[in-house]
Amino acid sequence: MPGGMASNPPEWAVEFVRAARVGRLATASAGGEPHVIPCVYVLLDGALYSIVDEKPKSGRRLQRLRNIDATGRAALVVDRYDEDWSQLAFVLIRGPATTITNADPRYAPALAALREKYPQYREMSLEDSEMVMLEAERWVAWKG
Amino acid sequence: MPGGMASNPPEWAVEFVRAARVGRLATASAGGEPHVIPCVYVLLDGALYSIVDEKPKSGRRLQRLRNIDATGRAALVVDRYDEDWSQLAFVLIRGPATTITNADPRYAPALAALREKYPQYREMSLEDSEMVMLEAERWVAWKG
Repeated sequence: MPGGMASNPPEWAVEFVRAARVGRLATASAGGEPHVIPCVYVLLDGALYSIVDEKPKSGRRLQRLRNIDATGRAALVVDRYDEDWSQLAFVLIRGPATTITNADPRYAPALAALREKYPQYREMSLEDSEMVMLEAERWVAWKG
Repeated sequence: MPGGMASNPPEWAVEFVRAARVGRLATASAGGEPHVIPCVYVLLDGALYSIVDEKPKSGRRLQRLRNIDATGRAALVVDRYDEDWSQLAFVLIRGPATTITNADPRYAPALAALREKYPQYREMSLEDSEMVMLEAERWVAWKG
């Protein structure tokens, strides 16, 4: 891995994660079945926050939320693809994860940060939506 | 989910996965720790194939390979991000997964298909690299 790995992330990796518009969030069920979906997020005070703005018709909680409640873990990857493979890069962040509601004191600042980063959220009513919080504990940063 | 879900995937989802240049592959350790990395892949005969062209300096097998050997499962998501969120789309594919070497009869056709899709692979010596095979058993296709 020419670009190196670090749990104390290099500056470029932190900036890369801050600036990117989309990441992919992986979770696993208690039985070890992996799941992954694209998500928008913010990095705030050493944690990643992503809000669940979908409302499944089934009324069932989304798989990612059930997985996080079951395992307490998640992983987010942020990457850049280019046909010139010397330009590839990714940052993988793993750590403890939890689902939080607006009763949690971290909810309001995270929602404000999401609305700052994503104007799309400003007109949406989200106060009743659950949020995923992933502590950015372990980082792998790689550049081609 | 306005775009619908299906295990028998809609035509657009198959085309979307075929045409996309990069996906994100999620696996989990036996202990339920999720992992996710970007990867290039081909869809061939109902399975996704991705080759491991990295050589970790540590000499240790890559996490994704160890995870697949431990759990026999993987998930791949292919998505489109756009600041106009009505244009978002993703296709999530899950199923049994395995690691294969060039001793496996599925290896050579998959490598040929990878080299057809990705000219970058044509000059690389890959015959000794392991491949991930994910059976495209369960599909979720979503459009905003």
